[in-house]
Amino acid sequence: MATETHFHKELDELKENLLRMAALVEGAIRDALQSLVKRDSELAKETFEEEDRINAMEIAIDDMCLRLLALRQPMASDLRFITSAMKITTDLERMGDQAVNIAERAIFLNQEPQLKPYIDVPRMAEIAQSMVKDVLDAFVNRDSKLARSVCERDDLVDGLKDQVLRELLTYMMSDPKTIPRAVHLIIIARCLERIADHATNIAEDVIFILDARVIKHHADAEEEGEGRNTS
Amino acid sequence: MATETHFHKELDELKENLLRMAALVEGAIRDALQSLVKRDSELAKETFEEEDRINAMEIAIDDMCLRLLALRQPMASDLRFITSAMKITTDLERMGDQAVNIAERAIFLNQEPQLKPYIDVPRMAEIAQSMVKDVLDAFVNRDSKLARSVCERDDLVDGLKDQVLRELLTYMMSDPKTIPRAVHLIIIARCLERIADHATNIAEDVIFILDARVIKHHADAEEEGEGRNTS
Repeated sequence: MATETHFHKELDELKENLLRMAALVEGAIRDALQSLVKRDSELAKETFEEEDRINAMEIAIDDMCLRLLALRQPMASDLRFITSAMKITTDLERMGDQAVNIAERAIFLNQEPQLKPYIDVPRMAEIAQSMVKDVLDAFVNRDSKLARSVCERDDLVDGLKDQVLRELLTYMMSDPKTIPRAVHLIIIARCLERIADHATNIAEDVIFILDARVIKHHADAEEEGEGRNTS
Repeated sequence: MATETHFHKELDELKENLLRMAALVEGAIRDALQSLVKRDSELAKETFEEEDRINAMEIAIDDMCLRLLALRQPMASDLRFITSAMKITTDLERMGDQAVNIAERAIFLNQEPQLKPYIDVPRMAEIAQSMVKDVLDAFVNRDSKLARSVCERDDLVDGLKDQVLRELLTYMMSDPKTIPRAVHLIIIARCLERIADHATNIAEDVIFILDARVIKHHADAEEEGEGRNTS
């Protein structure tokens, strides 16, 4: 019983670490965008530091998961939770890469005259950040409704990205001098779209895990019941 | 002993499935690019079908890994191998998304007059494909030298992407009518760069796992020796 309680404490700690890693990713996106909006390249450097911490957290969380798998040998839903956590850290780390990419382009753009007021791109970033936060909440709280709402927001982000693209194409066509800046902005929009895609991928996995339980119940029951039998 | 042999057979099967999934990803990239180069939009549809199979393989391989973890309760390097496999399927699935993105843009570009001969973009795709293949080979064969060569190729891909970007900027600036096509090509180059990034991320993980063994040896020995002790 003491071991069982300890295991639950460890799982809670894992959940907290995942939420903390997601918060770092949110922060990295926010700082990259704020750097762009406020034309403050110092803020972009915050993103680089956050990415270092994100990379370190991926390793730390994965190590924690490996330890739990090795020492606790969890079954069924705990096993799936821990391995899913390791897949989620992969996605979070890739999102950190995208935030760095945005920050690098912000630094370029901050050295040039501002092409246009930034409205849709920060809006995309806000939605992407909310998706990162909510999909991790959905995962740790096993909330498939929240995960579904994350998937729905992906369409909003895609719509905004198309709008940004259309608008910037107009700029470029009417004044070729705007092209380099417009291309950097298009790529920033693409990075945000990719972040939203990663969040959506996680959300789909969360829904799959939660809703598949009915279908998967038989298989899980087998796993729990059969112990070391082979399939 | 029979169980041990069976476990090794299962690990071999897992390796084969990973290599098969990577081959599908390579195929999806190849078909998307061939669709562009040969201006044959039917080929782009192959990519969509391959992506369906890639997604299905992610689920199947993850299920296989969960089964192995639950039934075999592997320790140390086998445990790390199986959980790494689950992280790699995440990356491979995301590469499939990028291939679909390329295929969609190929379909758009095939309806327009060809902007320029495609030389660097197919070259990027070839390198990206070789990176996908080799990083999976490096993983299943625990070959850190091969993994390092994958990381080195990432610079080639980045260099080609910069070259493509510079060239297309010139096109756009001299003739605004080329802008929509050029933007699609830039995004294709970005997708290939992202695929190479994913392969590099996996390669870094492979190197980390293999080279960390010395450092991690103590921790792994603990895992093996301590059994269910808590840390």
